[in-house]
Amino acid sequence: MLGKDYTAQDCSLARALEVVGERWTLLILRDAFFGVRRFNDFQVHLDIPKAVLSDRLSGLVDDGVLERRPDPDHAGRALYELTPAGRDLWPALHALLAWGDRHRAPNSREFRHAVCDTPLDDHAYCATCGTSPDPHDIVTAPRRGRRQRVRREDPVAVALQTPHRLLEPVKT
Amino acid sequence: MLGKDYTAQDCSLARALEVVGERWTLLILRDAFFGVRRFNDFQVHLDIPKAVLSDRLSGLVDDGVLERRPDPDHAGRALYELTPAGRDLWPALHALLAWGDRHRAPNSREFRHAVCDTPLDDHAYCATCGTSPDPHDIVTAPRRGRRQRVRREDPVAVALQTPHRLLEPVKT
Repeated sequence: MLGKDYTAQDCSLARALEVVGERWTLLILRDAFFGVRRFNDFQVHLDIPKAVLSDRLSGLVDDGVLERRPDPDHAGRALYELTPAGRDLWPALHALLAWGDRHRAPNSREFRHAVCDTPLDDHAYCATCGTSPDPHDIVTAPRRGRRQRVRREDPVAVALQTPHRLLEPVKT
Repeated sequence: MLGKDYTAQDCSLARALEVVGERWTLLILRDAFFGVRRFNDFQVHLDIPKAVLSDRLSGLVDDGVLERRPDPDHAGRALYELTPAGRDLWPALHALLAWGDRHRAPNSREFRHAVCDTPLDDHAYCATCGTSPDPHDIVTAPRRGRRQRVRREDPVAVALQTPHRLLEPVKT
């Protein structure tokens, strides 16, 4: 079993990967940026084993990337939301997504600056406003005219078929 | 055993993580940006099991991120160098490194624009020149005044004690 630490590496990249480098973790955080907050919603949207999801969410809470609080609508359940440190992962997450879009397969979604509706470039930069918008100023929507590789019908996928502001809770 | 694919996720982030999401892969690529090209140099600098290193290098070659060519100085051995697609990973790699530097522990190295000696900001941007330099225009050096968490004496670590331009082969 490979661990998740890199104790012999004196490097901030190693420190970051100790937090976000495990399988599934960055996809969980992507969904958190999309406004997913409930265990069941992460689980059905990611098709991830429950034990793995539980382990990753706990680790992200321990590392200060997600905050866990009681779900006011479901007694005994929790909501997971990005902390400021978690939201600071947006540039890294977007950079990986942009690389995948350029070198592997066009992305299924687009990201626009909410203020001016300009699509963000590969650097998550809005050329119209000359700024790198914070996640809560970004709207994501399915990319028009693109055939979906996988047709998902889970409640999160359905909710994200309409334009959605990042960090705004998804309605499922 | 967890695989490395995310076939049910129609998302460029998932496609990127299928290439760079496995344990060690981004640290191998970091070393490639530092100019490491030989199997033995990756191995001693990363303290990585040889079988894992071999698996990751082959995968990165198959995925078009590294190019493998014969080492002119060592018959029967290979050099691994970043392809243009591999060099395009620099913004993602730097963004993760910057996050680790800000939220986990200050980085052991700094990165400056070779033209003007300005330290790059968290977005790998040179504020003096108003540009995001390509890796071959970036010089990395140990951060002055920072105590090392781990004192490495391997040939790559020793070579990188002096300022070094990214992508320039390290002399070991």
